[in-house]
Amino acid sequence: MLILVNGEETQQTSALDRGLLYGQSVFETVPIAAQSLLLWEAHLNRLVAGATVIGVPLSPDFLADLSREAHSIASQCEDPAVLRVTVTAGQGGRGYLTPDPVQPTRILSCHPYPQYPVEHYDVGITLGVSDIRLATQPPLAGIKHGNRLEQILARAQWQAEWHEALLLDLDLNVVEATQSNVFLVQNGVLLTPELDRCGVAGVMRDYLIAAAQSIGVDTQIVRLSLSDVEAADEVFVSNSLIGLWPVERCLSRHYQSREISSKLLKILQKNEVIPNH
Amino acid sequence: MLILVNGEETQQTSALDRGLLYGQSVFETVPIAAQSLLLWEAHLNRLVAGATVIGVPLSPDFLADLSREAHSIASQCEDPAVLRVTVTAGQGGRGYLTPDPVQPTRILSCHPYPQYPVEHYDVGITLGVSDIRLATQPPLAGIKHGNRLEQILARAQWQAEWHEALLLDLDLNVVEATQSNVFLVQNGVLLTPELDRCGVAGVMRDYLIAAAQSIGVDTQIVRLSLSDVEAADEVFVSNSLIGLWPVERCLSRHYQSREISSKLLKILQKNEVIPNH
Repeated sequence: MLILVNGEETQQTSALDRGLLYGQSVFETVPIAAQSLLLWEAHLNRLVAGATVIGVPLSPDFLADLSREAHSIASQCEDPAVLRVTVTAGQGGRGYLTPDPVQPTRILSCHPYPQYPVEHYDVGITLGVSDIRLATQPPLAGIKHGNRLEQILARAQWQAEWHEALLLDLDLNVVEATQSNVFLVQNGVLLTPELDRCGVAGVMRDYLIAAAQSIGVDTQIVRLSLSDVEAADEVFVSNSLIGLWPVERCLSRHYQSREISSKLLKILQKNEVIPNH
Repeated sequence: MLILVNGEETQQTSALDRGLLYGQSVFETVPIAAQSLLLWEAHLNRLVAGATVIGVPLSPDFLADLSREAHSIASQCEDPAVLRVTVTAGQGGRGYLTPDPVQPTRILSCHPYPQYPVEHYDVGITLGVSDIRLATQPPLAGIKHGNRLEQILARAQWQAEWHEALLLDLDLNVVEATQSNVFLVQNGVLLTPELDRCGVAGVMRDYLIAAAQSIGVDTQIVRLSLSDVEAADEVFVSNSLIGLWPVERCLSRHYQSREISSKLLKILQKNEVIPNH
Protein backbone atom coordinates (compact mmCIF):
# COMPACT_ATOMS: atom_id res chain seq x y z
CA MET A 1 0.00 0.00 0.00
CA LEU A 2 1.26 3.45 -0.93
CA ILE A 3 1.85 5.58 2.20
CA LEU A 4 3.72 8.88 2.45
CA VAL A 5 4.80 10.12 5.88
CA ASN A 6 6.01 13.72 5.62
CA GLY A 7 6.65 13.05 1.95
CA GLU A 8 8.66 9.87 2.42
CA GLU A 9 7.36 6.54 1.14
CA THR A 10 7.19 4.24 4.16
CA GLN A 11 4.75 1.98 6.04
CA GLN A 12 5.92 3.28 9.42
CA THR A 13 5.67 6.33 11.61
CA SER A 14 7.07 7.34 14.99
CA ALA A 15 5.92 5.15 17.87
CA LEU A 16 5.81 8.35 19.96
CA ASP A 17 3.65 10.42 17.62
CA ARG A 18 1.10 12.46 19.59
CA GLY A 19 -1.59 11.21 17.24
CA LEU A 20 -0.90 7.75 18.62
CA LEU A 21 -0.25 8.78 22.23
CA TYR A 22 -3.26 11.07 22.68
CA GLY A 23 -5.32 11.14 19.51
CA GLN A 24 -4.04 14.65 18.76
CA SER A 25 -4.88 14.45 15.07
CA VAL A 26 -7.39 15.34 12.38
CA PHE A 27 -8.12 13.39 9.24
CA GLU A 28 -9.95 13.35 5.92
CA THR A 29 -11.10 10.55 3.66
CA VAL A 30 -11.16 11.77 0.08
CA PRO A 31 -12.45 9.82 -2.91
CA ILE A 32 -10.20 9.60 -5.95
CA ALA A 33 -11.67 9.16 -9.43
CA ALA A 34 -9.93 9.52 -12.80
CA GLN A 35 -6.76 10.48 -10.90
CA SER A 36 -8.55 13.44 -9.32
CA LEU A 37 -9.16 14.23 -5.65
CA LEU A 38 -12.89 14.92 -5.35
CA LEU A 39 -13.87 18.07 -3.41
CA TRP A 40 -10.25 18.42 -2.36
CA GLU A 41 -10.41 22.11 -1.43
CA ALA A 42 -13.31 21.52 0.92
CA HIS A 43 -11.50 18.62 2.60
CA LEU A 44 -8.32 20.65 2.94
CA ASN A 45 -10.20 23.61 4.44
CA ARG A 46 -11.87 21.42 7.03
CA LEU A 47 -8.55 19.76 7.88
CA VAL A 48 -6.86 23.12 8.42
CA ALA A 49 -9.69 24.46 10.58
CA GLY A 50 -9.77 21.34 12.73
CA ALA A 51 -6.00 21.19 13.11
CA THR A 52 -5.97 24.76 14.40
CA VAL A 53 -8.55 23.94 17.07
CA ILE A 54 -6.52 20.99 18.37
CA GLY A 55 -3.37 23.11 18.63
CA VAL A 56 -1.71 22.18 15.35
CA PRO A 57 -1.67 25.24 13.08
CA LEU A 58 -0.49 24.33 9.59
CA SER A 59 1.92 26.56 7.69
CA PRO A 60 1.51 27.43 4.00
CA ASP A 61 4.66 25.38 3.23
CA PHE A 62 3.27 22.36 5.06
CA LEU A 63 -0.02 22.64 3.19
CA ALA A 64 1.72 23.04 -0.15
CA ASP A 65 3.68 19.83 0.52
CA LEU A 66 0.54 18.05 1.69
CA SER A 67 -1.41 19.09 -1.38
CA ARG A 68 1.37 18.12 -3.78
CA GLU A 69 1.68 14.71 -2.12
CA ALA A 70 -2.10 14.19 -2.23
CA HIS A 71 -2.18 14.87 -5.96
CA SER A 72 0.84 12.64 -6.47
CA ILE A 73 -0.93 9.78 -4.70
CA ALA A 74 -4.08 10.40 -6.72
CA SER A 75 -2.09 10.07 -9.93
CA GLN A 76 -0.67 6.70 -8.82
CA CYS A 77 -3.78 5.00 -7.34
CA GLU A 78 -5.96 2.47 -9.05
CA ASP A 79 -9.23 4.07 -10.00
CA PRO A 80 -11.42 4.61 -7.96
CA ALA A 81 -9.63 4.82 -4.62
CA VAL A 82 -9.68 6.54 -1.25
CA LEU A 83 -7.03 8.88 0.07
CA ARG A 84 -6.79 9.13 3.82
CA VAL A 85 -4.95 12.22 5.07
CA THR A 86 -4.02 12.30 8.74
CA VAL A 87 -2.29 15.29 10.33
CA THR A 88 -0.98 14.86 13.85
CA ALA A 89 0.86 17.00 16.39
CA GLY A 90 3.97 14.95 15.55
CA GLN A 91 6.56 13.91 18.08
CA GLY A 92 6.88 15.84 21.26
CA GLY A 93 7.30 13.67 24.27
CA ARG A 94 4.99 12.36 26.92
CA GLY A 95 2.44 14.69 28.50
CA TYR A 96 -0.59 16.69 27.48
CA LEU A 97 1.30 19.92 26.81
CA THR A 98 1.54 20.45 23.06
CA PRO A 99 5.16 21.20 22.08
CA ASP A 100 5.88 24.80 21.10
CA PRO A 101 6.54 25.05 18.23
CA VAL A 102 4.54 21.99 17.22
CA GLN A 103 5.97 20.09 14.26
CA PRO A 104 3.03 18.37 12.62
CA THR A 105 3.27 15.04 10.85
CA ARG A 106 1.23 14.24 7.74
CA ILE A 107 0.36 10.70 6.74
CA LEU A 108 -1.23 10.11 3.33
CA SER A 109 -2.34 6.63 2.39
CA CYS A 110 -4.16 5.18 -0.61
CA HIS A 111 -6.88 2.58 0.00
CA PRO A 112 -9.23 0.58 -2.21
CA TYR A 113 -12.58 2.23 -2.82
CA PRO A 114 -15.21 0.21 -0.88
CA GLN A 115 -17.51 -2.05 -2.89
CA TYR A 116 -20.87 -0.61 -1.85
CA PRO A 117 -23.92 -2.75 -2.72
CA VAL A 118 -25.85 -1.16 -5.58
CA GLU A 119 -29.06 -1.85 -3.60
CA HIS A 120 -28.00 0.75 -1.06
CA TYR A 121 -28.56 3.34 -3.79
CA ASP A 122 -31.46 1.70 -5.62
CA VAL A 123 -33.52 0.24 -2.78
CA GLY A 124 -32.16 2.17 0.17
CA ILE A 125 -30.69 1.10 3.47
CA THR A 126 -31.88 -0.10 6.84
CA LEU A 127 -30.97 2.49 9.45
CA GLY A 128 -30.65 1.33 13.05
CA VAL A 129 -30.49 3.41 16.20
CA SER A 130 -27.37 3.04 18.31
CA ASP A 131 -27.38 2.78 22.10
CA ILE A 132 -24.15 4.79 22.20
CA ARG A 133 -24.81 8.46 22.93
CA LEU A 134 -22.53 11.13 21.53
CA ALA A 135 -20.93 13.21 24.27
CA THR A 136 -21.34 16.98 24.21
CA GLN A 137 -18.06 18.78 23.62
CA PRO A 138 -18.68 22.09 21.82
CA PRO A 139 -15.02 23.05 21.18
CA LEU A 140 -14.51 19.79 19.26
CA ALA A 141 -17.95 19.62 17.62
CA GLY A 142 -17.94 19.41 13.84
CA ILE A 143 -14.24 18.52 13.62
CA LYS A 144 -13.08 15.27 12.04
CA HIS A 145 -10.52 14.61 14.77
CA GLY A 146 -8.82 11.38 15.71
CA ASN A 147 -10.75 10.71 18.94
CA ARG A 148 -13.18 8.19 17.48
CA LEU A 149 -13.85 5.72 20.27
CA GLU A 150 -17.54 6.63 20.27
CA GLN A 151 -17.84 5.63 16.62
CA ILE A 152 -15.84 2.45 17.26
CA LEU A 153 -18.17 1.47 20.10
CA ALA A 154 -21.22 2.32 18.00
CA ARG A 155 -19.98 0.39 14.96
CA ALA A 156 -19.28 -2.67 17.11
CA GLN A 157 -22.94 -2.71 18.21
CA TRP A 158 -24.61 -2.63 14.80
CA GLN A 159 -27.22 -5.34 14.41
CA ALA A 160 -26.81 -7.71 11.48
CA GLU A 161 -29.52 -6.14 9.34
CA TRP A 162 -28.33 -2.55 9.82
CA HIS A 163 -26.44 -0.71 7.08
CA GLU A 164 -25.95 2.39 9.21
CA ALA A 165 -27.05 3.53 12.67
CA LEU A 166 -28.28 6.82 14.05
CA LEU A 167 -26.37 8.36 16.94
CA LEU A 168 -28.21 10.54 19.44
CA ASP A 169 -26.80 12.85 22.06
CA LEU A 170 -27.60 12.55 25.77
CA ASP A 171 -30.67 14.76 25.31
CA LEU A 172 -31.85 12.29 22.65
CA ASN A 173 -31.36 14.65 19.75
CA VAL A 174 -30.47 12.88 16.52
CA VAL A 175 -26.98 14.10 15.59
CA GLU A 176 -25.63 11.95 12.77
CA ALA A 177 -25.04 8.32 11.87
CA THR A 178 -21.95 6.24 12.67
CA GLN A 179 -20.04 7.25 9.56
CA SER A 180 -22.39 9.66 7.81
CA ASN A 181 -24.58 12.71 8.25
CA VAL A 182 -28.36 12.52 8.27
CA PHE A 183 -31.00 14.44 6.31
CA LEU A 184 -34.77 14.38 6.57
CA VAL A 185 -37.27 15.74 4.07
CA GLN A 186 -40.46 17.14 5.59
CA ASN A 187 -43.01 18.97 3.43
CA GLY A 188 -40.42 19.64 0.74
CA VAL A 189 -37.88 21.16 3.18
CA LEU A 190 -34.55 19.52 3.95
CA LEU A 191 -33.72 19.18 7.66
CA THR A 192 -30.35 18.22 9.09
CA PRO A 193 -29.11 18.29 12.70
CA GLU A 194 -27.15 21.09 14.29
CA LEU A 195 -23.59 20.01 14.99
CA ASP A 196 -22.70 22.61 17.59
CA ARG A 197 -22.35 20.15 20.48
CA CYS A 198 -21.00 17.00 18.83
CA GLY A 199 -20.86 15.24 15.47
CA VAL A 200 -18.75 15.67 12.35
CA ALA A 201 -19.63 18.37 9.82
CA GLY A 202 -19.27 16.36 6.63
CA VAL A 203 -17.85 17.84 3.46
CA MET A 204 -20.67 16.04 1.61
CA ARG A 205 -23.20 17.52 4.04
CA ASP A 206 -22.14 21.02 3.03
CA TYR A 207 -22.14 20.06 -0.63
CA LEU A 208 -25.64 18.63 -0.43
CA ILE A 209 -27.00 21.70 1.35
CA ALA A 210 -25.66 23.84 -1.51
CA ALA A 211 -26.88 21.37 -4.14
CA ALA A 212 -30.37 21.41 -2.62
CA GLN A 213 -30.36 25.20 -2.70
CA SER A 214 -29.47 25.05 -6.39
CA ILE A 215 -32.69 23.15 -7.13
CA GLY A 216 -34.81 25.40 -4.93
CA VAL A 217 -34.88 23.20 -1.82
CA ASP A 218 -34.17 25.01 1.44
CA THR A 219 -32.29 23.36 4.28
CA GLN A 220 -32.98 24.02 7.94
CA ILE A 221 -30.25 23.14 10.43
CA VAL A 222 -32.16 22.26 13.57
CA ARG A 223 -32.46 19.95 16.57
CA LEU A 224 -34.17 16.74 15.50
CA SER A 225 -35.63 13.85 17.47
CA LEU A 226 -36.40 10.24 16.59
CA SER A 227 -40.02 11.36 16.27
CA ASP A 228 -38.95 13.75 13.53
CA VAL A 229 -37.20 10.87 11.79
CA GLU A 230 -40.34 8.76 12.05
CA ALA A 231 -42.51 11.60 10.78
CA ALA A 232 -40.28 12.43 7.80
CA ASP A 233 -41.37 11.93 4.20
CA GLU A 234 -37.88 10.90 3.18
CA VAL A 235 -34.59 10.19 4.96
CA PHE A 236 -31.06 9.81 3.64
CA VAL A 237 -27.49 9.65 4.90
CA SER A 238 -24.40 11.12 3.29
CA ASN A 239 -20.64 11.07 3.37
CA SER A 240 -17.84 11.80 0.93
CA LEU A 241 -17.36 8.19 -0.16
CA ILE A 242 -20.96 7.03 -0.56
CA GLY A 243 -22.40 10.33 -1.72
CA LEU A 244 -25.82 9.55 -0.32
CA TRP A 245 -27.93 6.52 0.47
CA PRO A 246 -31.70 6.78 0.78
CA VAL A 247 -33.09 5.14 3.90
CA GLU A 248 -35.63 2.41 3.20
CA ARG A 249 -36.33 1.43 6.80
CA CYS A 250 -35.82 3.03 10.18
CA LEU A 251 -37.68 2.08 13.36
CA SER A 252 -41.29 1.35 12.38
CA ARG A 253 -41.13 3.21 9.07
CA HIS A 254 -40.72 2.18 5.45
CA TYR A 255 -39.93 5.28 3.46
CA GLN A 256 -41.42 5.36 -0.04
CA SER A 257 -40.35 8.76 -1.26
CA ARG A 258 -37.02 9.29 -3.02
CA GLU A 259 -38.03 12.63 -4.48
CA ILE A 260 -35.27 14.85 -3.11
CA SER A 261 -32.57 12.22 -2.58
CA SER A 262 -32.78 10.99 -6.17
CA LYS A 263 -32.39 14.53 -7.50
CA LEU A 264 -29.43 15.17 -5.23
CA LEU A 265 -27.78 11.87 -6.15
CA LYS A 266 -28.09 12.78 -9.83
CA ILE A 267 -26.37 16.10 -9.12
CA LEU A 268 -23.51 14.31 -7.33
CA GLN A 269 -23.09 11.97 -10.29
CA LYS A 270 -23.41 14.70 -12.91
CA ASN A 271 -20.90 16.93 -11.11
CA GLU A 272 -18.59 13.94 -10.61
CA VAL A 273 -18.06 14.58 -6.90
CA ILE A 274 -18.40 10.85 -6.19
CA PRO A 275 -16.84 8.04 -8.23
CA ASN A 276 -19.10 6.28 -10.72
CA HIS A 277 -20.18 2.90 -9.41
CA MET B 1 15.11 6.15 23.68
CA LEU B 2 14.28 2.51 24.38
CA ILE B 3 11.03 1.48 22.68
CA LEU B 4 9.65 -2.01 22.17
CA VAL B 5 6.84 -2.53 19.64
CA ASN B 6 5.44 -6.04 20.02
CA GLY B 7 8.75 -7.02 21.58
CA GLU B 8 10.97 -5.60 18.87
CA GLU B 9 13.32 -2.71 19.59
CA THR B 10 12.36 0.08 17.18
CA GLN B 11 11.37 3.75 17.13
CA GLN B 12 8.61 3.12 14.60
CA THR B 13 5.17 1.61 14.36
CA SER B 14 2.64 1.06 11.59
CA ALA B 15 1.36 4.25 9.99
CA LEU B 16 -2.04 2.50 9.77
CA ASP B 17 -2.31 1.47 13.40
CA ARG B 18 -5.87 1.95 14.68
CA GLY B 19 -4.45 3.73 17.70
CA LEU B 20 -3.22 6.40 15.29
CA LEU B 21 -6.21 6.32 12.92
CA TYR B 22 -8.98 6.42 15.54
CA GLY B 23 -7.46 6.60 19.01
CA GLN B 24 -8.46 2.96 19.60
CA SER B 25 -5.95 2.47 22.42
CA VAL B 26 -5.44 2.41 26.16
CA PHE B 27 -2.30 3.36 28.03
CA GLU B 28 -0.55 3.42 31.38
CA THR B 29 2.28 5.53 32.76
CA VAL B 30 4.15 3.55 35.35
CA PRO B 31 6.97 4.86 37.53
CA ILE B 32 10.16 2.83 37.69
CA ALA B 33 12.41 2.96 40.76
CA ALA B 34 15.28 0.65 41.66
CA GLN B 35 14.56 -1.30 38.48
CA SER B 36 11.04 -2.07 39.70
CA LEU B 37 7.69 -1.20 38.15
CA LEU B 38 5.68 0.48 40.90
CA LEU B 39 2.09 -0.77 41.39
CA TRP B 40 2.50 -2.78 38.20
CA GLU B 41 -0.34 -5.22 38.87
CA ALA B 42 -2.82 -2.39 39.37
CA HIS B 43 -1.71 -0.71 36.14
CA LEU B 44 -1.92 -3.97 34.24
CA ASN B 45 -5.40 -4.71 35.59
CA ARG B 46 -6.69 -1.29 34.55
CA LEU B 47 -5.10 -1.67 31.10
CA VAL B 48 -6.79 -5.03 30.55
CA ALA B 49 -10.18 -3.79 31.71
CA GLY B 50 -10.02 -0.71 29.50
CA ALA B 51 -8.79 -2.62 26.47
CA THR B 52 -11.76 -4.99 26.75
CA VAL B 53 -14.21 -2.07 26.75
CA ILE B 54 -12.71 -0.57 23.57
CA GLY B 55 -12.93 -3.90 21.75
CA VAL B 56 -9.37 -5.15 22.26
CA PRO B 57 -9.46 -8.20 24.56
CA LEU B 58 -5.94 -9.23 25.55
CA SER B 59 -4.92 -12.89 25.64
CA PRO B 60 -2.86 -14.44 28.46
CA ASP B 61 0.03 -14.90 26.00
CA PHE B 62 -0.10 -11.25 24.98
CA LEU B 63 -0.13 -10.16 28.61
CA ALA B 64 2.74 -12.46 29.50
CA ASP B 65 4.81 -10.92 26.69
CA LEU B 66 3.81 -7.42 27.73
CA SER B 67 4.71 -8.04 31.35
CA ARG B 68 8.05 -9.61 30.48
CA GLU B 69 8.91 -6.68 28.22
CA ALA B 70 7.88 -4.17 30.88
CA HIS B 71 10.18 -5.77 33.44
CA SER B 72 12.96 -5.94 30.86
CA ILE B 73 12.63 -2.21 30.21
CA ALA B 74 12.57 -1.50 33.95
CA SER B 75 15.85 -3.35 34.33
CA GLN B 76 17.48 -1.25 31.59
CA CYS B 77 16.22 2.26 32.46
CA GLU B 78 18.09 4.92 34.33
CA ASP B 79 16.62 5.29 37.78
CA PRO B 80 14.02 6.73 38.30
CA ALA B 81 12.13 6.55 35.02
CA VAL B 82 8.67 6.30 33.51
CA LEU B 83 7.35 3.39 31.48
CA ARG B 84 4.58 4.20 29.07
CA VAL B 85 2.59 1.17 27.92
CA THR B 86 0.22 1.70 25.00
CA VAL B 87 -2.00 -1.08 23.70
CA THR B 88 -3.83 -0.44 20.43
CA ALA B 89 -6.21 -2.36 18.19
CA GLY B 90 -3.26 -2.81 15.81
CA GLN B 91 -3.55 -2.73 12.05
CA GLY B 92 -6.89 -3.42 10.47
CA GLY B 93 -7.66 -1.10 7.65
CA ARG B 94 -9.72 2.02 7.31
CA GLY B 95 -13.15 2.20 8.92
CA TYR B 96 -14.67 2.08 12.37
CA LEU B 97 -15.33 -1.67 12.36
CA THR B 98 -12.80 -3.35 14.65
CA PRO B 99 -11.17 -6.28 12.84
CA ASP B 100 -12.22 -9.74 14.00
CA PRO B 101 -10.01 -11.16 15.35
CA VAL B 102 -8.29 -8.02 16.51
CA GLN B 103 -4.50 -8.27 16.69
CA PRO B 104 -3.42 -5.78 19.32
CA THR B 105 -0.15 -3.91 19.22
CA ARG B 106 1.81 -3.08 22.37
CA ILE B 107 4.23 -0.18 22.55
CA LEU B 108 6.45 0.14 25.61
CA SER B 109 8.72 3.14 25.96
CA CYS B 110 11.06 4.37 28.67
CA HIS B 111 11.06 8.08 29.51
CA PRO B 112 12.95 10.30 31.97
CA TYR B 113 11.19 10.76 35.28
CA PRO B 114 9.93 14.38 35.40
CA GLN B 115 11.84 16.83 37.63
CA TYR B 116 8.99 17.94 39.88
CA PRO B 117 9.70 21.05 41.99
CA VAL B 118 10.16 20.08 45.63
CA GLU B 119 7.91 23.04 46.55
CA HIS B 120 4.96 21.23 45.01
CA TYR B 121 5.27 18.74 47.89
CA ASP B 122 6.45 21.11 50.63
CA VAL B 123 4.44 24.24 49.95
CA GLY B 124 1.69 22.89 47.73
CA ILE B 125 0.45 23.87 44.31
CA THR B 126 -1.78 26.49 42.75
CA LEU B 127 -4.81 24.78 41.29
CA GLY B 128 -6.66 26.58 38.51
CA VAL B 129 -10.10 25.84 37.09
CA SER B 130 -10.25 24.99 33.40
CA ASP B 131 -12.87 26.34 31.01
CA ILE B 132 -12.88 23.00 29.20
CA ARG B 133 -15.76 20.80 30.36
CA LEU B 134 -15.42 17.03 30.34
CA ALA B 135 -18.00 15.36 28.12
CA THR B 136 -20.26 12.71 29.61
CA GLN B 137 -19.62 9.29 28.11
CA PRO B 138 -20.43 6.56 30.68
CA PRO B 139 -19.13 3.54 28.69
CA LEU B 140 -15.68 5.16 28.50
CA ALA B 141 -15.67 6.77 31.96
CA GLY B 142 -12.80 5.77 34.21
CA ILE B 143 -10.73 4.27 31.37
CA LYS B 144 -7.29 5.61 30.51
CA HIS B 145 -7.93 5.48 26.77
CA GLY B 146 -6.15 7.26 23.96
CA ASN B 147 -8.85 9.86 23.19
CA ARG B 148 -7.26 12.71 25.11
CA LEU B 149 -8.13 15.83 23.14
CA GLU B 150 -10.04 17.24 26.11
CA GLN B 151 -6.92 17.05 28.26
CA ILE B 152 -4.81 18.54 25.44
CA LEU B 153 -7.21 21.48 25.11
CA ALA B 154 -7.31 21.93 28.88
CA ARG B 155 -3.51 21.79 29.24
CA ALA B 156 -3.09 24.38 26.49
CA GLN B 157 -5.24 26.80 28.49
CA TRP B 158 -3.42 26.68 31.81
CA GLN B 159 -2.58 30.11 33.13
CA ALA B 160 1.08 30.82 33.90
CA GLU B 161 0.72 30.51 37.67
CA TRP B 162 -1.20 27.23 37.61
CA HIS B 163 0.43 23.91 38.44
CA GLU B 164 -2.71 21.92 37.73
CA ALA B 165 -6.30 22.74 36.77
CA LEU B 166 -9.65 21.33 37.82
CA LEU B 167 -11.90 19.95 35.12
CA LEU B 168 -15.66 20.10 35.60
CA ASP B 169 -18.39 18.32 33.68
CA LEU B 170 -21.20 20.14 31.90
CA ASP B 171 -23.28 20.06 35.09
CA LEU B 172 -20.36 21.80 36.82
CA ASN B 173 -19.43 18.84 38.96
CA VAL B 174 -15.71 18.71 39.75
CA VAL B 175 -14.43 15.51 38.13
CA GLU B 176 -10.63 15.52 38.23
CA ALA B 177 -7.67 17.68 37.25
CA THR B 178 -5.93 17.76 33.87
CA GLN B 179 -3.50 14.95 34.68
CA SER B 180 -4.48 13.92 38.19
CA ASN B 181 -7.37 12.96 40.45
CA VAL B 182 -8.70 15.28 43.15
CA PHE B 183 -9.35 14.73 46.84
CA LEU B 184 -10.93 17.00 49.44
CA VAL B 185 -10.82 16.63 53.21
CA GLN B 186 -13.91 17.83 55.02
CA ASN B 187 -14.33 17.23 58.76
CA GLY B 188 -11.79 14.44 58.70
CA VAL B 189 -13.48 12.57 55.84
CA LEU B 190 -11.87 12.17 52.43
CA LEU B 191 -14.06 13.08 49.45
CA THR B 192 -13.29 12.32 45.82
CA PRO B 193 -15.50 12.66 42.73
CA GLU B 194 -17.54 9.88 41.19
CA LEU B 195 -16.08 8.87 37.82
CA ASP B 196 -19.14 7.17 36.37
CA ARG B 197 -19.71 9.73 33.59
CA CYS B 198 -16.20 10.85 32.68
CA GLY B 199 -12.69 11.10 34.08
CA VAL B 200 -9.87 8.63 34.58
CA ALA B 201 -9.89 6.32 37.59
CA GLY B 202 -6.27 6.66 38.68
CA VAL B 203 -4.28 3.76 40.02
CA MET B 204 -2.95 6.18 42.66
CA ARG B 205 -6.52 7.25 43.49
CA ASP B 206 -7.39 3.65 44.38
CA TYR B 207 -4.17 3.27 46.31
CA LEU B 208 -4.81 6.42 48.33
CA ILE B 209 -8.38 5.39 49.16
CA ALA B 210 -7.00 2.13 50.57
CA ALA B 211 -4.13 3.92 52.34
CA ALA B 212 -6.57 6.34 53.97
CA GLN B 213 -8.66 3.41 55.14
CA SER B 214 -5.55 1.90 56.70
CA ILE B 215 -5.15 4.96 58.94
CA GLY B 216 -8.82 5.12 59.83
CA VAL B 217 -9.87 7.79 57.31
CA ASP B 218 -13.01 6.98 55.36
CA THR B 219 -13.44 8.05 51.73
CA GLN B 220 -16.76 9.05 50.21
CA ILE B 221 -17.05 8.91 46.42
CA VAL B 222 -19.56 11.63 45.64
CA ARG B 223 -20.53 14.47 43.30
CA LEU B 224 -18.56 17.56 44.24
CA SER B 225 -18.90 21.20 43.22
CA LEU B 226 -16.50 24.12 43.24
CA SER B 227 -18.26 25.26 46.41
CA ASP B 228 -17.22 21.98 48.03
CA VAL B 229 -13.65 22.66 46.95
CA GLU B 230 -13.80 26.15 48.44
CA ALA B 231 -15.30 24.81 51.67
CA ALA B 232 -12.77 22.00 52.11
CA ASP B 233 -10.27 21.90 54.96
CA GLU B 234 -7.63 20.40 52.72
CA VAL B 235 -7.29 19.61 49.01
CA PHE B 236 -4.78 17.48 47.13
CA VAL B 237 -4.27 15.95 43.70
CA SER B 238 -2.78 12.57 42.87
CA ASN B 239 -1.39 10.49 40.08
CA SER B 240 1.01 7.60 39.74
CA LEU B 241 4.04 9.74 38.95
CA ILE B 242 3.65 12.55 41.47
CA GLY B 243 2.07 10.51 44.24
CA LEU B 244 0.22 13.49 45.64
CA TRP B 245 0.59 17.24 45.77
CA PRO B 246 -1.19 19.29 48.43
CA VAL B 247 -3.06 22.29 47.05
CA GLU B 248 -1.94 25.60 48.51
CA ARG B 249 -4.28 27.84 46.50
CA CYS B 250 -7.48 27.35 44.56
CA LEU B 251 -9.94 30.09 43.66
CA SER B 252 -10.17 32.42 46.69
CA ARG B 253 -8.74 29.91 49.17
CA HIS B 254 -5.37 29.37 50.75
CA TYR B 255 -5.40 25.95 52.34
CA GLN B 256 -3.43 25.69 55.60
CA SER B 257 -4.09 22.09 56.59
CA ARG B 258 -1.85 19.26 55.39
CA GLU B 259 -3.07 16.84 58.05
CA ILE B 260 -4.30 13.99 55.86
CA SER B 261 -2.18 14.61 52.76
CA SER B 262 1.07 14.60 54.74
CA LYS B 263 0.16 11.27 56.35
CA LEU B 264 -0.75 9.77 52.98
CA LEU B 265 2.42 11.06 51.33
CA LYS B 266 4.47 9.42 54.09
CA ILE B 267 2.70 6.13 53.41
CA LEU B 268 3.49 6.40 49.69
CA GLN B 269 7.14 7.05 50.48
CA LYS B 270 7.38 4.36 53.15
CA ASN B 271 5.73 1.78 50.88
CA GLU B 272 7.94 2.89 47.99
CA VAL B 273 5.06 3.22 45.51
CA ILE B 274 6.54 6.47 44.21
CA PRO B 275 10.21 7.10 43.47
CA ASN B 276 12.19 9.00 46.11
CA HIS B 277 12.75 12.58 45.09
